[in-house]
Amino acid sequence: MQINTMETIETLGTISFAISGTFAAMQRRLDPFGVLIIAFVTSIGGGTVRDLLIGDTPVAWMRDVNYCLLILLTSIATIFFKTHIKKFKVTLFLFDSLGLGLFTMLGIQKGMMFGLSPGICVALGTITGCFGGVIRDTLLNTIPLIFHKEVYATACILGGILYYALKYFHLKDDIATIAVISFIFILRIIVVRYKLALPKFVY
Amino acid sequence: MQINTMETIETLGTISFAISGTFAAMQRRLDPFGVLIIAFVTSIGGGTVRDLLIGDTPVAWMRDVNYCLLILLTSIATIFFKTHIKKFKVTLFLFDSLGLGLFTMLGIQKGMMFGLSPGICVALGTITGCFGGVIRDTLLNTIPLIFHKEVYATACILGGILYYALKYFHLKDDIATIAVISFIFILRIIVVRYKLALPKFVY
Amino acid sequence: MQINTMETIETLGTISFAISGTFAAMQRRLDPFGVLIIAFVTSIGGGTVRDLLIGDTPVAWMRDVNYCLLILLTSIATIFFKTHIKKFKVTLFLFDSLGLGLFTMLGIQKGMMFGLSPGICVALGTITGCFGGVIRDTLLNTIPLIFHKEVYATACILGGILYYALKYFHLKDDIATIAVISFIFILRIIVVRYKLALPKFVY
Repeated sequence: MQINTMETIETLGTISFAISGTFAAMQRRLDPFGVLIIAFVTSIGGGTVRDLLIGDTPVAWMRDVNYCLLILLTSIATIFFKTHIKKFKVTLFLFDSLGLGLFTMLGIQKGMMFGLSPGICVALGTITGCFGGVIRDTLLNTIPLIFHKEVYATACILGGILYYALKYFHLKDDIATIAVISFIFILRIIVVRYKLALPKFVY
Repeated sequence: MQINTMETIETLGTISFAISGTFAAMQRRLDPFGVLIIAFVTSIGGGTVRDLLIGDTPVAWMRDVNYCLLILLTSIATIFFKTHIKKFKVTLFLFDSLGLGLFTMLGIQKGMMFGLSPGICVALGTITGCFGGVIRDTLLNTIPLIFHKEVYATACILGGILYYALKYFHLKDDIATIAVISFIFILRIIVVRYKLALPKFVY
Repeated sequence: MQINTMETIETLGTISFAISGTFAAMQRRLDPFGVLIIAFVTSIGGGTVRDLLIGDTPVAWMRDVNYCLLILLTSIATIFFKTHIKKFKVTLFLFDSLGLGLFTMLGIQKGMMFGLSPGICVALGTITGCFGGVIRDTLLNTIPLIFHKEVYATACILGGILYYALKYFHLKDDIATIAVISFIFILRIIVVRYKLALPKFVY
């Protein structure tokens, strides 16, 4: 049952990231192919970088063509129904935050499957959650959003640390997983709602 | 014989991409090392990303030093004879388009060798043909050309779909391969000649 | 003994690159997480690209968590003591140049371990030394420094050629290694001291 839940939320996360990538690309006036590529990269970028770094190739999306179809259909639907979807901005943000939490947990668990140490697993979780957006912003020629706005990646790192803290107190893996996803989800909502941000440095 | 033909066109494609990379880098006033790196990246970027994603490492250019020598010599020759080569702009464009077609087919066939599904193989073909240019433009700090001009990657995708359509009708692989390369080659010429472009979206 | 010396200098190189990454990120007014990521990427980027290309995964920093801790502590220390460290600009530059020399040699030796040809090994050495900076600059949305300023990568390439020249004359590996590191170190100091640069091209 846990696996089914995870797959459901992963699907929702993939859809949300595809939608956010489509919007970002349309904002930069790319042609339809560019929009599809950016939607694709935003959705699978994080997992791809994770799989490359640990050497689990062919990378995940190459082994399951359904992923690609899902992103393709989501992106096309977003292009055609954009006025309609814009009204659901809040729904979108919620899905995106859910996806962030789940992708972070997927990354951590994949790292553990490969026998990597906790610090590395947290890094893998953060990469899985955030690097789709990093590659998207790099291709669109802007400084990646997560480097200067919102406490995006920080939420992943804190979530990862929380996971190991809960494991340390012998919590069941299912409960710890759900707790971490909820934590990242809620933390991000609080941060965006109250416009919180980490302080910046001037050199 | 087919293999020899492919190798010949691949060599020509590599040379064309090296020349186009050299020109792009000189336009941005890079120093000679920068020019060589950009020429190199443009030529081998697509195949490298493809090999990384399917886990076929060490990547192709590391196993055959002749590739590197070819790019090095082409780039140096371009630097010294740039005035002369500029006159052959049309020849260059033709080679570049030929290379695009062939690299796309190479990517598709490599994907099939690894037992990947058709949709993924078309994606691999597109990556092999286009990502050298994407990395070049990202390093040169511009939005990759293929995201907002010319129907470049779209030609690869349509070519890939054509390949599987021809296979579906039991065409011999040799003939299908040549048909697809010709299709991409001619499509690109028509698009550039008549200044066609995909419509853009505004968000 | 040679291994211990190498490890010592590698540690110093890692520290220097972490410091230089931290400074670069603070200059662009990133938040603390962004600063840490850029410091991390600058330090381990070159080795990561090298390991990905030759297929030695999980990549090096995933197998030794001490690397990550070292970078984390260095970056945090740099943030807190930035005024103090700025005074040691020359010391920093020297460490950075030392690191460049050593990382180049590490890359060459890893390539040799994998049985790659000399030209490819020199390329791997250059990648190990320079690509951390390339990724840093790409993420910070500038044309990578090494493409248009200083004879940075050129020093790595010349050092790599020198290494094979010394091997050709049957020098002991230890001595050749130290000679190459010193060569890159001194060449870079001379170039920066006398503001030398490769000539640029205009297209």
